[in-house]
Amino acid sequence: MSIPLVIDTDTAQDDCVAILAGLLTEGADLRAITMVAGNVGFDRQVRNAYLTLNASDKLGAAPIYLGARRPLVRPWVSAENVHGDGAGGLDMSFEGLEPETEHAVDALLRLADEAAGELSIVAIGPLTNIALAVAKRPEFAQQVKHLVVMGGSNNARGNITAAAEFNFYVDPEAAKIVFDAGFNVTVVPWAPLTLQQAVFQRPVLDRIAAIGTPLAEFFTRVCSSTLAFDESVGIPGTTHPDSLSVAVLLRPELVRRSAQYNVDIETGSELTRGYAAMSWGVHGLAPNATVVEEIDEDGFREFLLSMLSVETTPPRPFTA
Amino acid sequence: MSIPLVIDTDTAQDDCVAILAGLLTEGADLRAITMVAGNVGFDRQVRNAYLTLNASDKLGAAPIYLGARRPLVRPWVSAENVHGDGAGGLDMSFEGLEPETEHAVDALLRLADEAAGELSIVAIGPLTNIALAVAKRPEFAQQVKHLVVMGGSNNARGNITAAAEFNFYVDPEAAKIVFDAGFNVTVVPWAPLTLQQAVFQRPVLDRIAAIGTPLAEFFTRVCSSTLAFDESVGIPGTTHPDSLSVAVLLRPELVRRSAQYNVDIETGSELTRGYAAMSWGVHGLAPNATVVEEIDEDGFREFLLSMLSVETTPPRPFTA
Amino acid sequence: MSIPLVIDTDTAQDDCVAILAGLLTEGADLRAITMVAGNVGFDRQVRNAYLTLNASDKLGAAPIYLGARRPLVRPWVSAENVHGDGAGGLDMSFEGLEPETEHAVDALLRLADEAAGELSIVAIGPLTNIALAVAKRPEFAQQVKHLVVMGGSNNARGNITAAAEFNFYVDPEAAKIVFDAGFNVTVVPWAPLTLQQAVFQRPVLDRIAAIGTPLAEFFTRVCSSTLAFDESVGIPGTTHPDSLSVAVLLRPELVRRSAQYNVDIETGSELTRGYAAMSWGVHGLAPNATVVEEIDEDGFREFLLSMLSVETTPPRPFTA
Amino acid sequence: MSIPLVIDTDTAQDDCVAILAGLLTEGADLRAITMVAGNVGFDRQVRNAYLTLNASDKLGAAPIYLGARRPLVRPWVSAENVHGDGAGGLDMSFEGLEPETEHAVDALLRLADEAAGELSIVAIGPLTNIALAVAKRPEFAQQVKHLVVMGGSNNARGNITAAAEFNFYVDPEAAKIVFDAGFNVTVVPWAPLTLQQAVFQRPVLDRIAAIGTPLAEFFTRVCSSTLAFDESVGIPGTTHPDSLSVAVLLRPELVRRSAQYNVDIETGSELTRGYAAMSWGVHGLAPNATVVEEIDEDGFREFLLSMLSVETTPPRPFTA
Ligand SMILES: [Ca+2]
Ligand SMILES: [Ca+2]
Ligand SMILES: [Ca+2]
Ligand SMILES: [Ca+2]
Repeated sequence: MSIPLVIDTDTAQDDCVAILAGLLTEGADLRAITMVAGNVGFDRQVRNAYLTLNASDKLGAAPIYLGARRPLVRPWVSAENVHGDGAGGLDMSFEGLEPETEHAVDALLRLADEAAGELSIVAIGPLTNIALAVAKRPEFAQQVKHLVVMGGSNNARGNITAAAEFNFYVDPEAAKIVFDAGFNVTVVPWAPLTLQQAVFQRPVLDRIAAIGTPLAEFFTRVCSSTLAFDESVGIPGTTHPDSLSVAVLLRPELVRRSAQYNVDIETGSELTRGYAAMSWGVHGLAPNATVVEEIDEDGFREFLLSMLSVETTPPRPFTA
Repeated sequence: MSIPLVIDTDTAQDDCVAILAGLLTEGADLRAITMVAGNVGFDRQVRNAYLTLNASDKLGAAPIYLGARRPLVRPWVSAENVHGDGAGGLDMSFEGLEPETEHAVDALLRLADEAAGELSIVAIGPLTNIALAVAKRPEFAQQVKHLVVMGGSNNARGNITAAAEFNFYVDPEAAKIVFDAGFNVTVVPWAPLTLQQAVFQRPVLDRIAAIGTPLAEFFTRVCSSTLAFDESVGIPGTTHPDSLSVAVLLRPELVRRSAQYNVDIETGSELTRGYAAMSWGVHGLAPNATVVEEIDEDGFREFLLSMLSVETTPPRPFTA
Repeated sequence: MSIPLVIDTDTAQDDCVAILAGLLTEGADLRAITMVAGNVGFDRQVRNAYLTLNASDKLGAAPIYLGARRPLVRPWVSAENVHGDGAGGLDMSFEGLEPETEHAVDALLRLADEAAGELSIVAIGPLTNIALAVAKRPEFAQQVKHLVVMGGSNNARGNITAAAEFNFYVDPEAAKIVFDAGFNVTVVPWAPLTLQQAVFQRPVLDRIAAIGTPLAEFFTRVCSSTLAFDESVGIPGTTHPDSLSVAVLLRPELVRRSAQYNVDIETGSELTRGYAAMSWGVHGLAPNATVVEEIDEDGFREFLLSMLSVETTPPRPFTA
Repeated sequence: MSIPLVIDTDTAQDDCVAILAGLLTEGADLRAITMVAGNVGFDRQVRNAYLTLNASDKLGAAPIYLGARRPLVRPWVSAENVHGDGAGGLDMSFEGLEPETEHAVDALLRLADEAAGELSIVAIGPLTNIALAVAKRPEFAQQVKHLVVMGGSNNARGNITAAAEFNFYVDPEAAKIVFDAGFNVTVVPWAPLTLQQAVFQRPVLDRIAAIGTPLAEFFTRVCSSTLAFDESVGIPGTTHPDSLSVAVLLRPELVRRSAQYNVDIETGSELTRGYAAMSWGVHGLAPNATVVEEIDEDGFREFLLSMLSVETTPPRPFTA
């Protein structure tokens, strides 16, 4: 049975890999890619999504809807220092490729209606679009079967600040709205989970480079800027929280341990902006989210590597 | 030449009077009433709007669109302690009266498109709908000709707290979004303006009661709960900031003095939640709003009183 | 019967006038001047206090104790843009003039003990010293007979920001401590009171200049920088909240109207830092302070003018 | 050569063990115990300190000074739910035992003077006293040779909330003052360090119980309430961050790894109140503290166990 899903993304680096997983995983029925302001320039993100569709020879397979071009309340903060253009300098002709005219928020609401309780969403950027869908229609939270959110850290270090992970930092109000809305939500945190179990170190990256498929080459390119940044801050490889989030939805058996938490987001302070307070059950707060604590690390890696081994013929040639 | 406008409202008490002004003032072209969570229960507010349309014999003249049923980030806070049901217990048959199916936010965006730069908005409730329209389409702020906002106090006392006026208190994040968005915005503040120049004391209320039209009777009824509350907190009459806001748009000659301010809204603290910092030009902040400082008080009163003198035949009988 | 008092001050401009009032008013028993970080450089403030003692021929009459050289939690913010050096460039020989070695906080505690319930304090700078006295000995609040605080605005504009008056802005945590401590406290606010009733316009300043005593000359000099600043921001004269605070203690009959308020201070937000939420009794908060709402404006002016008419012989010559 | 030190403490449970370490470790010259509001009732804490002095037969060896009876700005929050009375119900006659009359803050300042740059402080409660010493004399920070602070978590879970550890939560303003003051400060965090390396599990506790000395019996008693609480929240033993802090000062060779951090404390939000943002060098913030990351766990345990093996003859009999 297939899983209808939408990927809500600020497409750059591992977002591309996540989209590949949404397109290529057996049983996945990727109904839309919805774009949200985050990692890099909004239009750049859209191009990165098209590059990804092209790499997997799926141009046209998943419509792209444009959502919020900035966070709800605050100015946009980019992660271009981390991701560069988010595609390792890859380019191609985008002629004739046009996103849908329907706004991403409306598409999310419509797709939820059409799927009649079966739609899942993997949100791997700031939560602006998801929050706007809730603001427009509060019962959207109940219509979505499963929301997987990449964001926050589980009582561990952030990345953009000590306290905060990028996605929640960029739009903390949106994140707060989402965690208050009543979704069946699973969180894939940055730390410790991603840092401990979803970093591809040099030997793995070498294995991928050796695969030799267009997808493997695409992976190597889009992860290149982030690899350099990561190594400069002591992370020994590329990080894959976004593709892990798609895997958590599509291959739930990869989750070894998860637990119920009360998750609340800091919106009132600059020092702790976007901090996710994840209370593990001893502070008397009602749980509102499942947080992934441990995965089958080998299984996740092989999930991605076997996907990258698929031969594709990108219809449009990539240029430098 | 007529002024195309939308009234965005949490319809109760003076919101009703404001809608009357939007319906009955010569030159006003009221294209929609958009409903936002605020004063009283959302469905009650919709009924109050229909009661108002009926009182002015304008059922069908202005479509009603339903917008945000709660503030963006925070739980809804009501003002039922002030306004009761917001209509002084008035009732009627609502059979066959159905709001539009289009969401208020989409209606605002569409109407702005259709009016091609000529649409004005009078926002007399929490700013949730307006903020959502901006979030969905940032250039909406530039498409709106004139946004008149009832909210905040101009370096003076609030009402729901010492620091804050109700509309901004209920959804401070929405208010912050709106003041950051680049609208041509005019603010009608609660204090000192409303308290000094838009309170109808007993003698005026007696004059209105003596008018004897259905509209005057309607006015007396819908203002009754608020009058009792106001007098209990030392305000010697009914307050009319919402109808004043409509008047500011439609009869700009009633504004005697206004000035440029930088307006920013407190979203990070509970004590000062929703406080509007209105900086008058000496703190080095760029102005982003015009704030009304003084009106032609007599002119405003007579504007409303002559409106209430119009004879109407409400098509549906009011019940207690 | 005399009133034993301490003036806690960041001595510049009207602080000097306030100290004159503490020294020269019949019935005042000024037991100490305690210095706190505020308006201008700490050592400059001390010199301004000595200049004031000299002007009144009271060198040695009131010991000076040095208190907190910075706010409790935050970096010091100066008002040198307003006050210059706070003494209009006046100078003299400070040879042999040495403040006490006892810390101001200890002096406050000791003087409260010695006065056995009769000590009053007029606090006309940031409240750091008073807060530290409370922190060291919580029952200090009950030992002080009457604390008059110059600070905040009563639901009106601030000065350093729209929201905040300087003294509370500089050390909001100290102000919060003081209002939570249980003092019998009277507040002399910046606005509207000071702006409406304690501004000396040019004709009054001319009258003072014409007096011709050393004290009147001293007044003219120390107020000169502030006058220029005030006029540049639309305040038509010199402002006298600090000397008014001393007058409120020593000449309570000058208070025409005051009321009970709940006063709380904003410490958590940058936008509203130091804002004093003064709730006037309708929000269900227990009163913790008396706020002066109206004074006998003529009486206050004549109180100061007659004081400035006293002939003194400053023992040390003033230099430019 | 001996190390002159003060222990600033909210004496309950491991604070007692920390005081024992300060009294009994070779080379330690414990010049004072200063009491601060924290774990349990203030007077109860003083009694717990006397119980500890008695257990080690050191009554009179270290004077006790009473400091702040509440946090600087906020109401006191107790940890009695964790610690009970903090002494496992132990009691004795306190007749004739009187703390010093000098205030703890003044004692700290005087002892720093007397030690002429050689005094170290181990602060194992809320930082109110230390902050007040800085407020009274900013250069105190430079006078103290080494300040070891137990508090915060190093990008890991808190205890009283998800975000915050108890000591910093109780008085976040004090903690912020201390980290801004310029001390040579070493932090012993709650998590991960304490939870990973300073928990005594049942087998270790059994070894201690088997020692049979009065000190070992005392240890077992004072840790009993905390053991029950810890096990109820999933911590498999008693926690010893306070005694570890003393060990870090006196036996620095027990520190296996530490690093420079920028530590800042959240004071503006309720959700993250008292959170310690510990930035590890990648966010461009200047370091202001050394944080202990790893200790010689066996060495620390044996340090405490050998101390508990010392035979003492408590001069006053313990009762129930
Ligand atoms: Ca992403
Ligand atoms: Ca309204
Ligand atoms: Ca002053
Ligand atoms: Ca402790």
